Amino acid sequence: MNDSLCTSKIAVALVHAPVLNRQGERTTTALTTIDIHDFARSCAFYGVAPVYLVHPAAGMHRLVADIRDYWQHGAGAARNPGRAKVLQAVRMVHALQDVFSDADYQLWYTSATPAGRRMTDVPALGQMPGRHLIVFGTGSGLDVSALPRPNGWLSPITGDGMVRHLSVRAALAIYLDRLFRDRG
Amino acid sequence: MNDSLCTSKIAVALVHAPVLNRQGERTTTALTTIDIHDFARSCAFYGVAPVYLVHPAAGMHRLVADIRDYWQHGAGAARNPGRAKVLQAVRMVHALQDVFSDADYQLWYTSATPAGRRMTDVPALGQMPGRHLIVFGTGSGLDVSALPRPNGWLSPITGDGMVRHLSVRAALAIYLDRLFRDRG
Repeated sequence: MNDSLCTSKIAVALVHAPVLNRQGERTTTALTTIDIHDFARSCAFYGVAPVYLVHPAAGMHRLVADIRDYWQHGAGAARNPGRAKVLQAVRMVHALQDVFSDADYQLWYTSATPAGRRMTDVPALGQMPGRHLIVFGTGSGLDVSALPRPNGWLSPITGDGMVRHLSVRAALAIYLDRLFRDRG
Repeated sequence: MNDSLCTSKIAVALVHAPVLNRQGERTTTALTTIDIHDFARSCAFYGVAPVYLVHPAAGMHRLVADIRDYWQHGAGAARNPGRAKVLQAVRMVHALQDVFSDADYQLWYTSATPAGRRMTDVPALGQMPGRHLIVFGTGSGLDVSALPRPNGWLSPITGDGMVRHLSVRAALAIYLDRLFRDRG
């Protein structure tokens, strides 16, 4: 494993618990397999690592291990060798707090509806010292009452109002593009 | 069906044939169901319509009709009524040329590796008169030798080089963000 591929100034986390359901109650979501691939691939495209997948259930950790094994050693490795390389950046953790054993990250939370919070535009992260973790929630968003206090919140992506939010896959892609577009 | 939801100055097409396989030969790809939802949702978020899905096979048209029916009339309609509205913008066509029966579109092709072609940055489309169709390919990209001559090619999204291209879902999200971010 080439470690230089697997850390960068910016890292990403996708949180499955604690998040909110549509009623605003605390819940845990299942891992969506396409998110594993799209998060790993979009992050690899922009040189962002690690990609933390936060899930408390051991079964979900085993699922990701199985998927990774298929692409590293199974039939997938022959068919699409690039995918194993991309998946190297994925790290499973049980809780968001576990990321601090890797680095002293500054946490940046994202929300489609961050009412009343002071916002930071994502390109500003590129100018700040230190290591930064951009945190996405599944379900109806992060349950901040049960998560560490973040360094700040990133400005939401705004649309036409017909739908409240993008898929988390689309939101990640847009934030990374905004972050790296002008680095030249 | 509210027609104002279903047309805009910019429309999008996702082509499954004719596209190229990894060997550079002409092929047809299967429809990926997550693409239907992510394309419909990202386009609805930015007020872009229609979303054309180009596939020659009648079975794939029936698949999309079934999915739409589930969200409009089935159990999905009760669980997530917003999804039916979003899917209204999806139009199935058998070939890319069929879009011209809806409007006199200017075609803009996309490619992760558009070597040797003159490029247009996607925000420029917002300033141009007429109606514009942004065309994405599946597989290893559009087989332009068997498609109408486009009005032009859009500048590719560039990354760090570790992976050649983003998922088509991520690419769509980034193009739409670039197109609409500065419209104020």
